[in-house]
Amino acid sequence: MAVAKNKIEQVMDYVQTQIDSRIWTAQTRLPSVRQLAKQLGYSVSTVVEAYERLVAQGVIQAKAGSGFFVTAPNALLSMTSLAPKRERAVDPLWISRQTLEAGEAFLKPGCGWLPEDWLPQQSMRKAIRSSLSLPSKVLSDYATPQGAYAFRQLLAMRMQSKQIDAIPEQIMLMDSATQAIDLLCRFLLKPNDTVLVDDPCYFNFQALLKVHQVNVVGVPYTAQGVDIQAFEQAIHTHQPRLYITNAGLHNPTGAVQTLSNAYQVVKLIQQANMLVIEDDIYADFEDEPAPRLAALDGLKNVIYIGSFSKTLSASLRCGFIASSMEWIDDLVDLKIATQFSHHYLSAEIIYAILTDGSYRKHIDSMKLRLKRHMKSSIAQLATLGITPWMVPKAGMFLWCQLDERYDVNQLSKDCLAQDMVLAPGNSFSQSQQFKNYLRFNVAQCQNPKVFQILAEALALQNLNG
Amino acid sequence: MAVAKNKIEQVMDYVQTQIDSRIWTAQTRLPSVRQLAKQLGYSVSTVVEAYERLVAQGVIQAKAGSGFFVTAPNALLSMTSLAPKRERAVDPLWISRQTLEAGEAFLKPGCGWLPEDWLPQQSMRKAIRSSLSLPSKVLSDYATPQGAYAFRQLLAMRMQSKQIDAIPEQIMLMDSATQAIDLLCRFLLKPNDTVLVDDPCYFNFQALLKVHQVNVVGVPYTAQGVDIQAFEQAIHTHQPRLYITNAGLHNPTGAVQTLSNAYQVVKLIQQANMLVIEDDIYADFEDEPAPRLAALDGLKNVIYIGSFSKTLSASLRCGFIASSMEWIDDLVDLKIATQFSHHYLSAEIIYAILTDGSYRKHIDSMKLRLKRHMKSSIAQLATLGITPWMVPKAGMFLWCQLDERYDVNQLSKDCLAQDMVLAPGNSFSQSQQFKNYLRFNVAQCQNPKVFQILAEALALQNLNG
Repeated sequence: MAVAKNKIEQVMDYVQTQIDSRIWTAQTRLPSVRQLAKQLGYSVSTVVEAYERLVAQGVIQAKAGSGFFVTAPNALLSMTSLAPKRERAVDPLWISRQTLEAGEAFLKPGCGWLPEDWLPQQSMRKAIRSSLSLPSKVLSDYATPQGAYAFRQLLAMRMQSKQIDAIPEQIMLMDSATQAIDLLCRFLLKPNDTVLVDDPCYFNFQALLKVHQVNVVGVPYTAQGVDIQAFEQAIHTHQPRLYITNAGLHNPTGAVQTLSNAYQVVKLIQQANMLVIEDDIYADFEDEPAPRLAALDGLKNVIYIGSFSKTLSASLRCGFIASSMEWIDDLVDLKIATQFSHHYLSAEIIYAILTDGSYRKHIDSMKLRLKRHMKSSIAQLATLGITPWMVPKAGMFLWCQLDERYDVNQLSKDCLAQDMVLAPGNSFSQSQQFKNYLRFNVAQCQNPKVFQILAEALALQNLNG
Repeated sequence: MAVAKNKIEQVMDYVQTQIDSRIWTAQTRLPSVRQLAKQLGYSVSTVVEAYERLVAQGVIQAKAGSGFFVTAPNALLSMTSLAPKRERAVDPLWISRQTLEAGEAFLKPGCGWLPEDWLPQQSMRKAIRSSLSLPSKVLSDYATPQGAYAFRQLLAMRMQSKQIDAIPEQIMLMDSATQAIDLLCRFLLKPNDTVLVDDPCYFNFQALLKVHQVNVVGVPYTAQGVDIQAFEQAIHTHQPRLYITNAGLHNPTGAVQTLSNAYQVVKLIQQANMLVIEDDIYADFEDEPAPRLAALDGLKNVIYIGSFSKTLSASLRCGFIASSMEWIDDLVDLKIATQFSHHYLSAEIIYAILTDGSYRKHIDSMKLRLKRHMKSSIAQLATLGITPWMVPKAGMFLWCQLDERYDVNQLSKDCLAQDMVLAPGNSFSQSQQFKNYLRFNVAQCQNPKVFQILAEALALQNLNG
């Protein structure tokens, strides 16, 4: 049992808590002895003793004439030290983490996935049950490196329906789209390369690219697709190696690139001998087929990826990479070296659902449901003075603008205090130009409490502002 | 349907095949026009035309005065260009790939996993069936970032039984041990750091470290553990950042480190402020508990990892990292950024098997079976003049020496021609000092064809040599 701590230990605990909760990160300068003594209500000598013990433990270090600093951790790669620290409320990684850790306890009207009851639970259970009759090796063995041929044939067929010419030989199964992009980044990038992303874009692209220590440049996304002039300018200025974007319904805006915009993008990247990773995880959400860069380019400079975590399951993880034949061999090697195998059984279960005849019905009904929720969410948000930048033709997202007088950061904090996690615009933006925006997921706005809490938080600002 | 190809196209196909099968890698100099014409029996002008077309396609490039070269691929990271090219027969990555791609078609008496019928199929099916009754979120949602608390509690208890003090808070679930090590390498290493490994060691450590572009130094492994004098010398000479080793039964030798050796290792690495990744995937194979570095060190400088792919399933992938509290936060962030989530359902199924009472029985019976096969494999290998470097106390591996007159590379090639993949000693060795060794997996030596094919290949060398 813990003995009551003396004052010195209490000061040490306070410092340790600041560090553990990352309010003070590596190399942060601590308050001076006098400052902290005053702040905590202890004597200067108590704080001196506490600081000295923490120095002896290596938790902080003294720099002569400068004061005390949090020791850089043993680890080289610290997410918090890789880039200017963002305020948590808009830090993409912090938001992902909050949302993942909180689980069902929190309302998450801005998150990027459907509620579990929207996913085809019955089909999942049926496929899991029938997996029991699969050959034993499927339950026990490593998968083949590229993954089951039949599944790759199916993926090639699905790609054909998006006008993308692909053969099973140029496809490799992975455990998720995130993992696929990560593998490709390892394959294609070196530190200090420049990578273009849309502005705004899916916020985990930014967290991932931080890990790869590359220079990230955002290019404004318009209602017709990425801003071509800005894109061309960015290529000229930065000589980027790579452009990462999502296909079809843009995340977070819901906009859909026009065919002529797509053509210009492909022409520019081919001229610049740049590469593109086109992430099509929302492939099945669209009604009218949008142009894929991979279709125009023919998988030469464009690498196409996808997964089933948005329409089937985020738990049974399954994704894929389709790339030029030139690279598949090396990608397979890299996959073996870094993960050895994807999940054999998960892939078989996902394949079973995709081929049992239920998938199309599930998608059609999901899209109808989203349309209804899109309508009602727009209406409810309007009553709060929140309007979408554009009304998307399909999908789950609404990219919404709030009146300039609102502090969206403060709003996020107030909502968090009520166990609701928002998705503030600046988490999606390299350029941080969307401080008055919020992304909503219409499928996660069903609970009336969402609008209640939001209304209260807005009212709070009206009162104070 | 393919039209019969003319001579020029045939030459082009030949060149393309050499490149696709990586016999000619990036920047390899092609045969001169005259040489290839002679070799293939075509006219010089045919080869000239073929080379010119390939240049136009970008497949090869001409360097004035030097000849023709295979074009460097667009990809930066090429497994084949990262280190001196090894002959395939001993290239660890090539062996892994052969074995994974061939699946059941090949005999694999040297591979690192148990045959699927040794794994607890019934328990697996039972756990999969009962997962159907789990809450829907387990089938559909993302897992919490560190993973289910109950599972981490179980892992902490299992670690306690190896004398390792760990709390659930310092454990994080991953999809596999390989993925865990890879994440840690990203977290801890930068290019050109030095990493120590045992010599010999698990060959995928080498493939993985190649990806991280670090300097790898092998330290001889003795029957009592890593050679302490050589270890100390290597620390002094190279100032390594990290040491990667496996706990308990050493792969490939089957040796077990003594307590005094473990103590000296921990003392040296702490003094040098180095880190250790201790891979305990064979934890459940030992009879007598071997000392864990993590137990002596207390998870300060030692990071401990494990998985269930060797005793439960390589298909339903589940592993974990146990590290100092100081790093868990950053490791969670890195995991979210690079893979977002581990497989929620797989982890729940594995947890169910570990807690349903069947696991211990499975392990006990597996170990008994291995003991029997160890005995019989040693006997059968003896008839071929193949003897183990030492007889392990437990586990699946036999590290065997062949008489110096045998060319193990040639043996591997001849066996491969008979659809049998061997595990030659030099694939396990940084220093390449084990050219007369083979690793056998006694559970994969049940089929009498294994010894037949081996005998024939040895006889072939006796005749020729």
